[in-house]
Amino acid sequence: MKFSASSADLLDALNTVKGAVPSKSTLPILECILFEQSDDGSALLLSATDLEISIVRRVPVQFASNGTSTPTRIAVPAKRLIDTLRALPDLPISFTADGDFEIQLETDQGHYKMVGHDGDDFPDLPEVDAAHTLSAEGALVRDAIDKTSFAVSKDALRPAMMGIYFQLDAENSRIVATDGHRLVKLDRPALQTDGDDVSFIVPEKATKLVSRILDDDALCTIGVSDGHVSFTIDEARIIARLIDETYPNYNAVIPDENDRQLVVNREALLSAVKRVGLYSSSMTNQIRLALSESEMTVSAEDIERSSEAEEVIRCEYDSEAMEIGFNSEYLTEVLGNVDSEEVLFRLSSPNRAGIVVPNNTDDPDILMLIMPVMLNTYA
Amino acid sequence: MKFSASSADLLDALNTVKGAVPSKSTLPILECILFEQSDDGSALLLSATDLEISIVRRVPVQFASNGTSTPTRIAVPAKRLIDTLRALPDLPISFTADGDFEIQLETDQGHYKMVGHDGDDFPDLPEVDAAHTLSAEGALVRDAIDKTSFAVSKDALRPAMMGIYFQLDAENSRIVATDGHRLVKLDRPALQTDGDDVSFIVPEKATKLVSRILDDDALCTIGVSDGHVSFTIDEARIIARLIDETYPNYNAVIPDENDRQLVVNREALLSAVKRVGLYSSSMTNQIRLALSESEMTVSAEDIERSSEAEEVIRCEYDSEAMEIGFNSEYLTEVLGNVDSEEVLFRLSSPNRAGIVVPNNTDDPDILMLIMPVMLNTYA
Repeated sequence: MKFSASSADLLDALNTVKGAVPSKSTLPILECILFEQSDDGSALLLSATDLEISIVRRVPVQFASNGTSTPTRIAVPAKRLIDTLRALPDLPISFTADGDFEIQLETDQGHYKMVGHDGDDFPDLPEVDAAHTLSAEGALVRDAIDKTSFAVSKDALRPAMMGIYFQLDAENSRIVATDGHRLVKLDRPALQTDGDDVSFIVPEKATKLVSRILDDDALCTIGVSDGHVSFTIDEARIIARLIDETYPNYNAVIPDENDRQLVVNREALLSAVKRVGLYSSSMTNQIRLALSESEMTVSAEDIERSSEAEEVIRCEYDSEAMEIGFNSEYLTEVLGNVDSEEVLFRLSSPNRAGIVVPNNTDDPDILMLIMPVMLNTYA
Repeated sequence: MKFSASSADLLDALNTVKGAVPSKSTLPILECILFEQSDDGSALLLSATDLEISIVRRVPVQFASNGTSTPTRIAVPAKRLIDTLRALPDLPISFTADGDFEIQLETDQGHYKMVGHDGDDFPDLPEVDAAHTLSAEGALVRDAIDKTSFAVSKDALRPAMMGIYFQLDAENSRIVATDGHRLVKLDRPALQTDGDDVSFIVPEKATKLVSRILDDDALCTIGVSDGHVSFTIDEARIIARLIDETYPNYNAVIPDENDRQLVVNREALLSAVKRVGLYSSSMTNQIRLALSESEMTVSAEDIERSSEAEEVIRCEYDSEAMEIGFNSEYLTEVLGNVDSEEVLFRLSSPNRAGIVVPNNTDDPDILMLIMPVMLNTYA
């Protein structure tokens, strides 16, 4: 393989695919990026995989006239190559790989040699024989991922919840994440399929890579097969193995009879919770909201360190006085992932899930749920 | 103790002193910052110490009319207080400490309570009974520290070299750091004393704290006693225990008969060394400079990983061809700490120290020395 390219273009493409390169692997070839000529010989395909998630990116380069020079596929050590290109200014470089998998980069100042692996030893990337495809604006897909990923579970004992759940159909589509303590549900009608209903769970790491690559104005095409999902964005494609589990019936936990309404300035509550949370027990992070008609008291205690804090903020609350406890970190994340100026809490009782939605939206497309924590009774 | 202050002013002062708070200590009170009233009652003095280095900062606050309310000294948990102030907007806060060392912060939104320690249990800070003092512009002192600190040794077996050596007298002053592989010597005539010669070794951590606090136009007053040095900058003072060792006779290792001169563009060599260094053995970081009259070849090999790199850059060299090896990281740091466009190497032979100075300076005030490494002879 022999081609020339701009070092900046090549680096840009490598930066896209390196997200799938595992930092440590028992299979050394996975620490490489596969370089191969596209079938029509007009471009270079870069691929990386950790066997769960793969990224392929196409980059136009100038192959030497003898476009079929061996090898046509070579695995190149990712870190060394990227470090070298990063240390170079943008200049034309020539890339040569010979039959012994020796790789040489040349610029007009110098040359750099390293040894790669036979590209044929690189694991085959999964073919996504998409039974369903849909396309959406990049901004829409990224927003859906960014607003839900904080709620994804880290608990390997409940693998279904370790990804974002996409439940797509022709009329509406929902994107859901939950770890059992909080839940986010987005309605995204624009993410509709061409007819068939399809639902699948995408591992969190894959969604993060998609979000990182997506430009606002890029088109994102999602393809789903039995076992995999692909996100195609411009010249890049991310392929992830789906989480093969049944997603919990999240609708069953969303209460619809919560009739106590609390409206509060989002920023004011968020910053109060952050400050007061510093004084909560580091074991439980428990803070207490004491609600009355026109103001709420946010308080926390840490008996072990004899510390406590209390703030009063204005609110509008339409029911009888109530105290309810939350984990301050969960509440911070919930409030941090709503855009509106005011939020509306719909509550029922101190031991039942609370609903958080943006206020003043006739058709709220985001719904968050947060489980309360039992308040200790102390002095 | 009871006072009111602006949260931003208090946070700013705390940020200055927190540099001396150890992150973990067997003595819990050291994780606190001592609050005490100044003798004249007009200001608050904040102190922190790790028993080697102490920082004191004065901050004007409004003490309550009963300025002598007990206690007049209290040790306040540093992290919790700073985290709280950082999460607050700038607003007036009131601080109260009672006889049980309970601390209460109050704002018009809420209050925060924590428990401190008796200020009388806080270690006494050393008095620096300065036998020598000198004052200099902040920019000058900071530049001297920043240009030398990279060469300070990390080797606890040679404690003398674990600090920056200040050798001050009435005619000239030198600031030196070395770890035995490289050495930096600055001549700074402006740092002259009022007559007596004085020399001392300041632990690197203290110099870093001084550099961080120094504003360019602040005046820095240095006071030296038998065992300690103090740097007074505006309302802050850093006190460090001196390293009580004899500094090695650095002049003996600076060769003066090096008569081979090499002039090279600093940026060009620096970036070539960085790139080629990626291909050197990670054990030795060894790179090779092959010098000829008008160009030099920078090369490295890593036999273990079968990688190599070579770059050619232009230079002016006035002697017979020579190959010399350096540790690429040391060479990178040396070149990164010179300001000039071109550097002049004064060399003698491949196994003798090389001198690096800025080129085209009649009176170079900075001199660096770098030890070569023995070149392996390989294919």
